[in-house]
Amino acid sequence: MSEWPSPNTRAQELYRRAEKVMPGGVTRIVPWQPPYPPYAEKGEGGYIIDVDGTRRLDLVNNFSSMIHGHAHPRIVQAVQEQVAMGTAFSMPTAAEIDLAETIAQRTPNIEWLRFSNSGSEAVMCAIKAARALTGRPKIVKIEGAYHGSYDFAEISLDSSPSNWGLEPQSVAYSAGVPDGVRENVVVVPFNDPAAAARIIRAEGENVAGILIDVTPSYLGYVSMTGEFARTMQDLAREIGAALILDEVISYRMDQGGAQHLYDLKPDFTVLGKIIGGGFPIGAVGGPRSAMSVFDHRNGKPLLPWSGTFTANPISMVAGKVSLDLLTPESIERINGLGHAFRDGLSRIFEETGYDAQVTGVASSFKISGHRRPIRDYRTSYSTPAEHGRVARLQEELLKLGYYIAYRGHGFFTTVNTPDEVDSLLEACRTAISHI
Amino acid sequence: MSEWPSPNTRAQELYRRAEKVMPGGVTRIVPWQPPYPPYAEKGEGGYIIDVDGTRRLDLVNNFSSMIHGHAHPRIVQAVQEQVAMGTAFSMPTAAEIDLAETIAQRTPNIEWLRFSNSGSEAVMCAIKAARALTGRPKIVKIEGAYHGSYDFAEISLDSSPSNWGLEPQSVAYSAGVPDGVRENVVVVPFNDPAAAARIIRAEGENVAGILIDVTPSYLGYVSMTGEFARTMQDLAREIGAALILDEVISYRMDQGGAQHLYDLKPDFTVLGKIIGGGFPIGAVGGPRSAMSVFDHRNGKPLLPWSGTFTANPISMVAGKVSLDLLTPESIERINGLGHAFRDGLSRIFEETGYDAQVTGVASSFKISGHRRPIRDYRTSYSTPAEHGRVARLQEELLKLGYYIAYRGHGFFTTVNTPDEVDSLLEACRTAISHI
Repeated sequence: MSEWPSPNTRAQELYRRAEKVMPGGVTRIVPWQPPYPPYAEKGEGGYIIDVDGTRRLDLVNNFSSMIHGHAHPRIVQAVQEQVAMGTAFSMPTAAEIDLAETIAQRTPNIEWLRFSNSGSEAVMCAIKAARALTGRPKIVKIEGAYHGSYDFAEISLDSSPSNWGLEPQSVAYSAGVPDGVRENVVVVPFNDPAAAARIIRAEGENVAGILIDVTPSYLGYVSMTGEFARTMQDLAREIGAALILDEVISYRMDQGGAQHLYDLKPDFTVLGKIIGGGFPIGAVGGPRSAMSVFDHRNGKPLLPWSGTFTANPISMVAGKVSLDLLTPESIERINGLGHAFRDGLSRIFEETGYDAQVTGVASSFKISGHRRPIRDYRTSYSTPAEHGRVARLQEELLKLGYYIAYRGHGFFTTVNTPDEVDSLLEACRTAISHI
Repeated sequence: MSEWPSPNTRAQELYRRAEKVMPGGVTRIVPWQPPYPPYAEKGEGGYIIDVDGTRRLDLVNNFSSMIHGHAHPRIVQAVQEQVAMGTAFSMPTAAEIDLAETIAQRTPNIEWLRFSNSGSEAVMCAIKAARALTGRPKIVKIEGAYHGSYDFAEISLDSSPSNWGLEPQSVAYSAGVPDGVRENVVVVPFNDPAAAARIIRAEGENVAGILIDVTPSYLGYVSMTGEFARTMQDLAREIGAALILDEVISYRMDQGGAQHLYDLKPDFTVLGKIIGGGFPIGAVGGPRSAMSVFDHRNGKPLLPWSGTFTANPISMVAGKVSLDLLTPESIERINGLGHAFRDGLSRIFEETGYDAQVTGVASSFKISGHRRPIRDYRTSYSTPAEHGRVARLQEELLKLGYYIAYRGHGFFTTVNTPDEVDSLLEACRTAISHI
């Protein structure tokens, strides 16, 4: 058991340096935790070793992107070879075609696709594509759902009881967001088909796209019902809008993504994280009828799309190996690990009386510091005290050699074992006993 | 001399595969050229070898990002080592601090910075930061200036005589752009301080930020006058808006970026391309007073910013080596190559009577298919016939073993030599004789 945070660590020293060159000492706000975060030195399979030499089982895996853990030998080899051949060209490469074919083969609804450098870029690209396809301005999104940093997609990301109103309101996430952004986003509640239908029909022909994620991270990866998903798709067809399915996280659920499990045929699918094998990536794909907005062969496309580092061969090569390694059997196995962990932790919370719950689906989990049944964003919403209950558990787990996200998120990877799940559960029990 | 394009090439075969999985057979529109683009197999220093085995001097260098050419041994080594230690973590790393310190040291006006995955993300981040800092909605930009794919930044990117009006209009770049985007962007002409002042003052307190690039790529890298740059900074101060300086390309001009040469103190500087050493990157930096919008230490920041792959250690390590290699001497040397090439090519156009001109600054160049003096976007604007004149030259150069961008852009790198500039000039002369 390591003391964390202890004084005079290398992490503390790094954080002091970081505070001099970065606002708040961080360049990404999500990984921060008080009083300062642990700093990664290296990763080895399922483990992350911090700069103070502490080795921990990594359950965060860069927020789900490292689905084969760190430094998978096949990915390392493929990337090291490509690095020596060049990392970014003005010309296209065969590697981008290989990865596109791999994705199209796994997900038949994706006939054509366009890469980008991140999930945020890909969501922006998909929203712009929906507007270009329909000539309409507005996007529908689900209250509390996270879709990256494009300001239209951030609307209502952290609505709170002080501003969410009776029915979901369009609430800006950062300061100074123009009204022209807020007014072009329509917010609907999760898993409430009747309310969503009423709100969406009222906007009707103003709607370019309906943006959904079947397991929104900020809602604890609770599953969208099949009925709600179908309703959203039917409504999109009814009003002539595009269905945009954000599979940046859910693509790990099945060889064909969540759209296979839900039998959805989105006009635009957004991908990211695991399709890059640990390197920056995003993608938008869909049937040719929708994706033709990008086609330049009859003059300027409705939506031109490029990007200096887009489809760089490193991300392409790593992504291809990563997807090839992600077989139906391996997905079934890690989904089983997720199931076993969520079951086991639920029992521990029950037995110990710790006021928390674990939700999630497939290989994901999210611990929340309350026991209200989570049906939507509002029932998932945690008070500071409830966030604190998760943070205490996270900090104790850090000391015991297990790394989950400060807000309680985690993901299993193909290098994890049932024994590791058992030891993680035992650590959770111990952690609770320390609180 | 290679035949390009010739039938039955591997490039043609790849393009046929690509057309099945990508709109128009490409995932980035910029590198495309008819009938299909050459595909890169590998890069070696200043050279790019395509899939058909043709070796060409690469003057595009992934649109200026490969400032040390391809597969620089020191970058290859640093990255290969990091790949084996892990490519992306949920935790921060020392590498992000190292790169931030390196940038802050070169550019004293950048006290704090925030990384992102691309220049497009960084421009979006800077615009959101300006809004958060001021609580205002509008952005001022220069007609025709390219700043990536955030829709607000794309306004008036390709205005044409049919829609640009007497004074710059806010013209959407792609189809279906909401009025709420268009109405929040104010367009001013390049290098016209009087017009810009009049337009900006009329918007006054609605303006969050004034976004400039002192050598806009779409305007042929012609230089902003010192007077215009100072006027834009003074106007920003006068109306209480942020000055946003896009140095994604201009950072190569000087050890301290263009802001050193122009003595500018932008509130937000946008970086990208060369600071990633050939890997996806972007950054926004500035004085603490402005960058404090990102600071979380007193509760939720005005602008939260994160990103799964943001500050991944691969981009950080490669970027640090790349900047360390970019000494004042090497910058002076490549700026000299740029100067020599532009001078030489201007003489060749003069002597041969080829109806074209070359513009640019420092190590950049842009060939345009007309001889009108380029003062701004409108004088830079090319007709299809004029674009064709550049394309013909580019295609001939491809056959002769030299690769410039289809639209005539190019950049010299630290691995280029004066002999290569001479041979490129000779090739230009030969190419013209073939047209």
